Amino acid sequence: MKRAVILLSGGLDSVTTLAIAKQQGFDCYTLSFDYGQRHDAELVAAKKLSIQMGAIEHKVINIDLRSIGGSALTDTTIDVPDHHEAGIPVTYVPARNTVFLSIALGWAEVLQAHAIFVGVNAVDYSGYPDCRPEYINAFEKLANLATKAGVEGQYLHIHTPLIDLTKSQIIQQGIALGVDYSQTISCYQADNEGRACGQCDSCRFRQQGFEQAGISDPTYYQKQI
Amino acid sequence: MKRAVILLSGGLDSVTTLAIAKQQGFDCYTLSFDYGQRHDAELVAAKKLSIQMGAIEHKVINIDLRSIGGSALTDTTIDVPDHHEAGIPVTYVPARNTVFLSIALGWAEVLQAHAIFVGVNAVDYSGYPDCRPEYINAFEKLANLATKAGVEGQYLHIHTPLIDLTKSQIIQQGIALGVDYSQTISCYQADNEGRACGQCDSCRFRQQGFEQAGISDPTYYQKQI
Repeated sequence: MKRAVILLSGGLDSVTTLAIAKQQGFDCYTLSFDYGQRHDAELVAAKKLSIQMGAIEHKVINIDLRSIGGSALTDTTIDVPDHHEAGIPVTYVPARNTVFLSIALGWAEVLQAHAIFVGVNAVDYSGYPDCRPEYINAFEKLANLATKAGVEGQYLHIHTPLIDLTKSQIIQQGIALGVDYSQTISCYQADNEGRACGQCDSCRFRQQGFEQAGISDPTYYQKQI
Repeated sequence: MKRAVILLSGGLDSVTTLAIAKQQGFDCYTLSFDYGQRHDAELVAAKKLSIQMGAIEHKVINIDLRSIGGSALTDTTIDVPDHHEAGIPVTYVPARNTVFLSIALGWAEVLQAHAIFVGVNAVDYSGYPDCRPEYINAFEKLANLATKAGVEGQYLHIHTPLIDLTKSQIIQQGIALGVDYSQTISCYQADNEGRACGQCDSCRFRQQGFEQAGISDPTYYQKQI
């Protein structure tokens, strides 16, 4: 029994991460969050891709991060910028990865899984503090102190297979594993049909990734760009 | 501005922690969770006590840990034991404190608070791994790597004023600060009126605490014990 919990947003990175976990022989349990994000089309994508890619179970946990606010992704009074900002952008959701990893940790313990996969990336990313290797290392350390499983000596490992890859390398790896990127949604403000804006940071990193990988961009955009 | 987020379950420990934070001059923002626990009478107590004790704001976050299961507190098919178990008991909720602290961290960042108070206790406790000092230290380290505030050098401190106290010392300190313990609910299976069972671990530690402190136990029990 080799089980893993995969954090799955439905975006390009997390879906590639799922494909990698599967290739490594894990039974995959995918975990998504309905946290009051603007772009809940990605939840539809996450469910669809979990089934298509053979996950054993897909769970969606409701958690209202909107009531905390503080981010353009959860507070409709803050606009998603159409340009890249210096420093940590307003799309940063306070403590989001920590909350998501914590819940993944709880589920991993119940499943007796010793692996959590998360598609964080420290190269072509938006400057989020909770995507850095030192953050992931600190979480792994915490995880092994936090749980009954950890106390009993079952080491839990946080896998970050994308952490050192550029967006184009991620795409190349996913294509090699048969990922259908037309189904993934990365846009911060996708519409109800899952079509991307083509303007936000997330869209721009993704576009550049396809361009640099020399692969035609299969994304559905709200208008032709 | 000296703000703190206080994790408030409505039980004896967390309410004493709130009293201590107030005494230390913090503006207190109390945070409770509706996580599918059996004993939601404690949420009513948490709200009432937040108002009585002058918290600036009380927030209840819904998060369904029931869908993860794995604990007698969130899974009605697992009985709450009426005796003390060796090792980590079935009332342990996988990764609960990590999930709660993560959300507190997100709110603290939005509030620009540099303090989180949590009433964990490593002396008279039930053997939960996420109540130990090494766990708290690891969380504090993680917290300061996880957030925009941390990256910008605003150090966040996790305060655990009860960590080295016995239950009777906690009660003595709370009494000195004017805490009305008759309103607090510690029982794992309190009824809808907030009356305690008198049998579970949490009830027993509490009873012993009052006894050792030489203070008459003001708890409302389901039957006279």
